[in-house]
Amino acid sequence: MDVDSFNENDLLLLENHMDVGAKFLGGGANGTADSRRDGRQDHGQRSVSSTDDELLDIRTDRLGPDRLGSDRYETLGYMNADYDEEEEGKYQTSSSNIMDTLEDLPPGIGQYDDFHTIDWLRDIARDRMRHRHIMKKKQEGFLEKLKSAHDAWSGWVCVLLVGVAAGACAGVIDIGATWMSDLKEGVCRDAFWLPKEQCCWSANNSFFNNSGCSQWYSWSQLLGAGKDVNSGGYYIVEYIVYILWALLFAFLAAMFVRMFAPYACGSGIPEIKTILSGFIIRGYLGKWTLLTKSIGMMLGVSAGLSLGKEGPFVHVACCCGNIFSYLFPKYGSNEAKKREILSAASAAGVSVAFGAPIGGVLFSLEEVSYYFPLKTLWRSFFCALAAAFVLRSINPFGNDHLVMFYVEYNEPWYLQELIPFIFLGALGGVFGSFFIKLNIRWCKFRKSSILGKYPIVEVLGVAFITALLSYPNEYTRKNTSELIRQLFSRCGPEDNTELCDYKRNYSSLNAASPTFYSSSTEAGDGVYKALWMLSIALIFKGIITIFTFGIKIPAGLFIPSMAVGAIVGRIVGIGVEQLVVRYHSNPFFHNMCVSDNFCTITPGLYAMVGAAAVLGGVTRMTVSLVVIMFELTGGLQYIVPLMAAVLTSKWVGDSLGREGIYDAHIHLNGYPYLDSKEEFTHTTIAADVMRPRRNDPPLCVITQDTMTLEELESTLKSSDHNGFPVVVSRESQYLVGFVLRRDVNLAIENSRKNLEGIVSSSIVYFTSHVPSNPNDPAPLKLRKILDMAPVTITDQTPMETVVEMFRKLGLRQTLVTHNGRLLGIITKKDVLRHVAQLQNQDPESILFN
Amino acid sequence: MDVDSFNENDLLLLENHMDVGAKFLGGGANGTADSRRDGRQDHGQRSVSSTDDELLDIRTDRLGPDRLGSDRYETLGYMNADYDEEEEGKYQTSSSNIMDTLEDLPPGIGQYDDFHTIDWLRDIARDRMRHRHIMKKKQEGFLEKLKSAHDAWSGWVCVLLVGVAAGACAGVIDIGATWMSDLKEGVCRDAFWLPKEQCCWSANNSFFNNSGCSQWYSWSQLLGAGKDVNSGGYYIVEYIVYILWALLFAFLAAMFVRMFAPYACGSGIPEIKTILSGFIIRGYLGKWTLLTKSIGMMLGVSAGLSLGKEGPFVHVACCCGNIFSYLFPKYGSNEAKKREILSAASAAGVSVAFGAPIGGVLFSLEEVSYYFPLKTLWRSFFCALAAAFVLRSINPFGNDHLVMFYVEYNEPWYLQELIPFIFLGALGGVFGSFFIKLNIRWCKFRKSSILGKYPIVEVLGVAFITALLSYPNEYTRKNTSELIRQLFSRCGPEDNTELCDYKRNYSSLNAASPTFYSSSTEAGDGVYKALWMLSIALIFKGIITIFTFGIKIPAGLFIPSMAVGAIVGRIVGIGVEQLVVRYHSNPFFHNMCVSDNFCTITPGLYAMVGAAAVLGGVTRMTVSLVVIMFELTGGLQYIVPLMAAVLTSKWVGDSLGREGIYDAHIHLNGYPYLDSKEEFTHTTIAADVMRPRRNDPPLCVITQDTMTLEELESTLKSSDHNGFPVVVSRESQYLVGFVLRRDVNLAIENSRKNLEGIVSSSIVYFTSHVPSNPNDPAPLKLRKILDMAPVTITDQTPMETVVEMFRKLGLRQTLVTHNGRLLGIITKKDVLRHVAQLQNQDPESILFN
Repeated sequence: MDVDSFNENDLLLLENHMDVGAKFLGGGANGTADSRRDGRQDHGQRSVSSTDDELLDIRTDRLGPDRLGSDRYETLGYMNADYDEEEEGKYQTSSSNIMDTLEDLPPGIGQYDDFHTIDWLRDIARDRMRHRHIMKKKQEGFLEKLKSAHDAWSGWVCVLLVGVAAGACAGVIDIGATWMSDLKEGVCRDAFWLPKEQCCWSANNSFFNNSGCSQWYSWSQLLGAGKDVNSGGYYIVEYIVYILWALLFAFLAAMFVRMFAPYACGSGIPEIKTILSGFIIRGYLGKWTLLTKSIGMMLGVSAGLSLGKEGPFVHVACCCGNIFSYLFPKYGSNEAKKREILSAASAAGVSVAFGAPIGGVLFSLEEVSYYFPLKTLWRSFFCALAAAFVLRSINPFGNDHLVMFYVEYNEPWYLQELIPFIFLGALGGVFGSFFIKLNIRWCKFRKSSILGKYPIVEVLGVAFITALLSYPNEYTRKNTSELIRQLFSRCGPEDNTELCDYKRNYSSLNAASPTFYSSSTEAGDGVYKALWMLSIALIFKGIITIFTFGIKIPAGLFIPSMAVGAIVGRIVGIGVEQLVVRYHSNPFFHNMCVSDNFCTITPGLYAMVGAAAVLGGVTRMTVSLVVIMFELTGGLQYIVPLMAAVLTSKWVGDSLGREGIYDAHIHLNGYPYLDSKEEFTHTTIAADVMRPRRNDPPLCVITQDTMTLEELESTLKSSDHNGFPVVVSRESQYLVGFVLRRDVNLAIENSRKNLEGIVSSSIVYFTSHVPSNPNDPAPLKLRKILDMAPVTITDQTPMETVVEMFRKLGLRQTLVTHNGRLLGIITKKDVLRHVAQLQNQDPESILFN
Repeated sequence: MDVDSFNENDLLLLENHMDVGAKFLGGGANGTADSRRDGRQDHGQRSVSSTDDELLDIRTDRLGPDRLGSDRYETLGYMNADYDEEEEGKYQTSSSNIMDTLEDLPPGIGQYDDFHTIDWLRDIARDRMRHRHIMKKKQEGFLEKLKSAHDAWSGWVCVLLVGVAAGACAGVIDIGATWMSDLKEGVCRDAFWLPKEQCCWSANNSFFNNSGCSQWYSWSQLLGAGKDVNSGGYYIVEYIVYILWALLFAFLAAMFVRMFAPYACGSGIPEIKTILSGFIIRGYLGKWTLLTKSIGMMLGVSAGLSLGKEGPFVHVACCCGNIFSYLFPKYGSNEAKKREILSAASAAGVSVAFGAPIGGVLFSLEEVSYYFPLKTLWRSFFCALAAAFVLRSINPFGNDHLVMFYVEYNEPWYLQELIPFIFLGALGGVFGSFFIKLNIRWCKFRKSSILGKYPIVEVLGVAFITALLSYPNEYTRKNTSELIRQLFSRCGPEDNTELCDYKRNYSSLNAASPTFYSSSTEAGDGVYKALWMLSIALIFKGIITIFTFGIKIPAGLFIPSMAVGAIVGRIVGIGVEQLVVRYHSNPFFHNMCVSDNFCTITPGLYAMVGAAAVLGGVTRMTVSLVVIMFELTGGLQYIVPLMAAVLTSKWVGDSLGREGIYDAHIHLNGYPYLDSKEEFTHTTIAADVMRPRRNDPPLCVITQDTMTLEELESTLKSSDHNGFPVVVSRESQYLVGFVLRRDVNLAIENSRKNLEGIVSSSIVYFTSHVPSNPNDPAPLKLRKILDMAPVTITDQTPMETVVEMFRKLGLRQTLVTHNGRLLGIITKKDVLRHVAQLQNQDPESILFN
C-alpha cells in the first residue's frame, strides 16, 4: 500500500473501524455486528447490539454452581493469547461442546489453560461488559431487578461465605490438631475423643497439671509400665510411643498428600502469591486440596514436626474462596474477578491463624495480593472479621481467644530497652537470611538428588529425627504453640516452672503496684537451667526447620520462626533482666528498678519482640507483622518496640539477601511472578527484550486482507505461538490488531463446517470492508475475532516502563512498534526472563508461560 | 516515504534508534550522545555516557536545601508536556538562568507550572536514572559511597523528620487551642498562660469542677459581676464575653487566612487528595500555609465554631512533608517522589489527630493516596509512629493519650445489639448524604452570590450565630472534643452529671462484678432532661455545620461529624437501655440483665458507634475509620459493631449519593482528580474522546526531517498546545515521538545563540541520520529532545482501558493511532471532561490542566 493513497482508502477503512469498542472484548458475538450501521453519533452510552453471528458461533461453557471445583470442566475452558511455546496437543476443546447456548458471555474467552497467565485488562473489561449487560436488562422486569441486586451483592455474600467457611475450617483443624497432639501422650479413658484439657475438665477433676488427671491415662499407664512419672520404664515407654505416633502421623500426612492432592504440601503462600499475580494452577485451590491440606495440617502438627498450621490456613482459606466463587458466576468464570475473592480469603486465613483481622488484611495487601482495589480492601476486612467471629464462636482453645498463644500485656517498657530490641531485630534479620539461604540450598539439593524421589521416606526420616531429639527436652517436646505461649507469658506468682524460678521474698511485696507479683527479679537456679535447655532447643529448632520446610506435607513457617525468635528473645530478655538487677544502681538503669532487686523488665516482651524479628527476617513482612503481633497481645503500647525490631530485621535481612522466603521459593519453583515490590533499575529498552531477536527468523504475522485460508493455516501450523499480530501488509508491517490462535482455529473450523463456498483459496479478511467479486471464492471474514486495541509500545521504551505496564495493567503481552511498524513482541515470560538475566540468574529458570 | 523502501532506509534508521533508552528521560544531556557508537552489544548495564552536548545546553536549577519552600525558585522550574490550553505568558524562565551548572539532573524537565498535572512515568524514570547515576559513581571513592548511603537512607530520614515535626506541630496546636478555648471562660490569675485544668493543678487546688478553682477567675469575676454562678448578672456577663471572644478569635482567624495564606482555609483534604493524584498547586503546602493554618486552627476551635482540628492536621503534616522534602533533592526536586513523602505525612497527620498510627496509614491508603507502593506503606507507618511518639512525649492533654476523647472500654456487647448498631449505621448514612448535598448546595450558593465576596463577614456571622446559640446549652457550650469524651464515657459511680442520673440503690450492689458500678440502670429525671438538651444540641450542630464547613478559615469535619453521631448514638443508646430495663423479662433480652433493674447496656458504646456511622456517612471511609475508632478505644472487641455500623452507613450513603464530602468538594472546585475508586462503566472508545474532534482543524504535528526552522516556529506560534507529536511526514502521519513546546523553544533559542549557520531556512531534523549537503544551511538537530517512547493506544481502545492506564501509569497524555498512523491525542483533562460528561455533569467544570 502506498502512503499517498492514505486519504482515500485508509480513511474509509478508519471510518469503519470507529464503532467496534466491544470488539476489544474478544470474540465479538455480542459486539456490534456491522460497525457501519450506527455511525459515530452516540457518544454516550454505546449500546452493544447482540446480533446473530453468521460466521462465528463460538460459544463457551459457562461454569455453573453445579460444576463446583470440578477439574473436568475447568480444562474445557478456553485459552487466551500467549505468544509462547505451547504444545499443540493441549487443545482439548472441540467445536462440538462450544456450540452450547450462552447469551451473556462473549464466546471463546475467559478461560485459560493450566499454567498460563491471565490477561487482567481483558478480564476486567469482560466483567464490566457483563455488568453493563445486567444494568441494561434491569429495566425489563422484577426478576431482572432481582438478578441485578443479586449481582451487586454477590461480592459481599461471597466473602461472607468464605469467611464463615474459613473460620469453620480453622476451628475444626485447631480442635483436631489439639486432640491428635495429646494422643501422643495418652488418651482420655472414658471419652477418647476429648483432648487432655477437656478430659480433665469433664472428669470434674480440677487438679490438672503436666502429669494429667485421674481420667487421663498416659500410654505408659495403659501399656502397663506404671504410673510413676520419674521411673525409667515410664520414660522409655513414653519416649517410644511418642516416636511411633509421630511416625504414624507423618506417614499418614505424607500418604494423603501423595494420594489425593500433591498440591497440598508446603505452606502454599508462594503459590498463592503467584496465583494472585495472575497465574493459573488448576486444582491448586480445589476441594481435594482443601480436604487433604486440612487433614495433613492436623497430622503434621500432631507429629511434632517443626512446622506450623498458620501459613497453610491461608491456603485453606483460599481454597474456600475458590470453591465458593463458583457459586457466583461473576467470580467463578472470571479469573481476574476471582482473585478479588482470593485476596479477601487470604486475609481471612491470617485472621483465623492469629486472631488478627486487621493484620490479615494488611498481610493480604503487603505480602500476597497483586491487584488490590479499594473494594477488595473493604471486602477483605469484612471477610477477615467474619472468619474471626466464627472461629471465636467455635472457641477451639477454650480461652475465648483465637490462638493458643494469646497473651495480654500491660507491662511498661523503657526507652533504654530499644537497644536490646534493635539487637534482637538484627539477630532476627541475620537468622532469617541464613535460614532462607540454607533452606533454598537444601531444596535445590532435594530436587537434584535421589531424595526427591522418595518424599515419604524423607518425611519419615525428618519425623523420626525430630521426635527422637525433641522428646528429651521439655521445651521441644511440647506443642510449639504452647512453647510460644509459655515464652511470651510473664511469670506470675503461682508459676512454679523452671523459667519462673526467681528468688522470691514475699515479705517485701510491693503492695502499691498490683502488677508486681514477684518481689524479686533475681534469677534462681531454675532460670539458669532453663536457659541451657532453651539454648539447646534453639539450636535444634533452628536446624531442623531448615530441613522440614519443603518436605511433602502441609507445613507453615510462621510458628517455627516465631518459636526460634521467642527463644532468642526470652534468653536475651532474661540476660537484660539479670544485667539490670546486678547493676541497678547504674544511672542508665535508674528508672527501671523499684527496689534493689526488683526491676520491671519483662522477658516475655523480649520473646514477643524476638518472635516478630525472626518472623520478619524470614518473611520480610513489616507493617502486617507488627499489626498481627499487637493484635495478639492487645497492647498498642508495644508498637514502637515491635516496629524497631521488625524494621531492623528487614533492613539487616535485605542487606544480606533481597528475597523473603516466599519469593525465594517462587524463584526456586520458576513461577512466573513479576514482583511488584522490587524496582527495575536497569537501562535496557524494549528493543533489547523483544522477540524476534536479531538473528531469529522474522515474526509470524497475518495480513489483514491478502492471505488465503491455506496460507493462514500453514502459518498457524508453522509456529507454536498462541497469538498473531495482524498487519496491513507483509511489506509495510503496520499494525492492525492481534488475534489469538485459539480464536482463529475455532473460526476456521466453524466456517468450513457451516458456511458454503469456503475453500482453501478463500481470502481471509480482517477488514470491515470486503470486496465482493463473484469470480473469487467466498471470502472468510474474521474481523470479529480481531482485538483492535492491543497494547503497543515503541522499541525505545525503557524496560522500566514496560515492567511497570506489565505489573500495573496486568498484561500478557505487548507489541513493539517503530514509527507505526510492527517490530516484535514482548510477553510476560520475556520480561521475567530478562529480569532474571539482569539479576544474574538463569533465565531458563522461568518455567511456565 | 514509500513503504517499499522500508528495508533499506528505515532499517538503518531503526538501527540507529536502538541505543537511546535514556533519551526517554527528557532532554538527554546525560543520554547517549551518538547512538551509533556503542551498538547493541551491551544488553545488561547500558552505560549512560555523559558527553558534552554541542547544541542543547539546557540546564535547570537544582532545588537545594537552601531554597526551602521558597516559591520564587519553584516557579523557575520547567514545565512538562501538556497538550492543553496554556497562556504563553506563563513561561517565565529565560535561558539565562538555565545555564547554571548541573551534572546530575537531565536538563529541562522535572519542574511543572502551577495548576499542571505531573507525568508520573517520566518522574519515576527520572528518579531511577538519578539512582543509577549514584550507584555508578559509588565505586569512585569514600565520599561517593557516603553520598550513596545518604541517598538510600534519605527517605527514612525524611519521614522521620516529618513525623517529628508533625507531632511537634500537633502538640503546640493542641496546647494552644486548649488555652485559648479556656480563655473564653476566664483566666488563670497568677499564670495567665495556663489553661483551666493546669491552672487549678498548679494552684495545688485538687478540687476542680466545672465552676473552676480558686486560682481560676471567670470573666464575670474579673469584670466585677460577682462569683455567684447562678445569678443572672453572672450569666449575662459570661454570655456576652463568650460571644465577644468568639467573634475576636473568628475575626483573627479569617484575617490571618486572608492576609497570609488563602490556601489555609478549609480542611485541606480535597486539595491534598488532588495534589497526591499528581496535580501541582504551588504554595498549598508552603511554610506560610503551615503557619497560618496552625494558628487559624487554634483560633477557629477556640472560637467555639462547629469545626475540628483533626482534618487540618493532615494538611499541617503534609506542609511539614513538603518543607522537609526540600532538604533531600531526591524528593524535593521530583514531584512524583515528593508524593511518597506526602502520603507518609498524611498518615502522620491522622496519627496525631486521633492517636491512631495504624488508622493513619490506612487513611492515607484508603482515602488520600493515589500512588501507594509498598515502600510508602512502610515509611508511612514509620512516619505515623514517630509523630505519635513525639506527641505522646509532649502529652498535650495531660492524660497520657494523644486525644482528648480517648476512652478505655471493657464493657461487653450482645449480639442483639447489632440491630440498633445497624440502625445507627443507616442513620449515619442518611445524615451523611444529606449533609453533603446541603453543604455543596450552600457552597455553590456562596460562590455565585454576594456572600462569596465578603468571607470575613461570613465568618463573623457564623461565629456570632454559633456563639449566641451554643452558650445556653451546656452540651454545645463546651469544647466539642470534651462533649465527645463525655458522650463516649460510661457513667461511673462518681459521675453526678445529668447524663448519669440513674436511680441508684447501693444496697444491691453486685460485688462479684467490679465493672457494675451502679446498681440500677433505670434512668432518673436528669437523664430525660439531658436527652432533651442533647436533641436540641443535635439539631443545632447538624445545621450549623452545614454552614460552617466551607467558610474561609481552617476547618475540619471529623469532630463535628463525630459529635453529631455521638449525640445520636447516646440518645439511641439510652433509649435501648431503658427499653431493655423495662422489658428485661422478655426472652430476647434475657442475657443482658443481671438483675431486675440492672442491665449492662453501655450508651457510651452507642455514642462511639454513632460517631463512626456519621463520620462514615460523611467521608465514606470504612476500614481506616474502624481502625481509628478502635485505636481510640483500645478495644478490639468492638470491631464487629463498628464495622456493622460503618458498612451500613457506607451502603446507605452510597445509595443516596455516590460521593463522599471530599470528592464532592473536589468536583465543586473543578480539580482534575481522576478517582481511582470509581469504576468506569461506559462503552465509549478512545476515538470518541480524542482530539481533534470530527470537525476540528487537524492535529498540530511536526515532521521529523522536512520542516524548516521558520515553519517550526510558526507551528509553535499557531497553537497553544504544550506538546507536539513528531511524525514521519505530514502525509503519512506515522508517529515517531513527542516533543514538549518548552524543550523546542529552549533548543531553538539556544542554537540560534550558540550555533553558527542556523537560519530560518535551516531544516529541523529529529532523525539521527542528518544528510550533509554543503549547499544547504546548517541543519538543526533536535533528536535529543525527542521522547521516542510516548504512550500510544489505538483508536479502538475502550475508554475503560484508557482510564485504567491514566490512573495506574499516571499519564498526562496518550497519543491515539490507527494502523500506526497518528489520529489524535487524549490528555488527562480530556479524560476528566469525558467522565464528567458521562456522569451528566458539566464537562467545563474541570478547570485546570
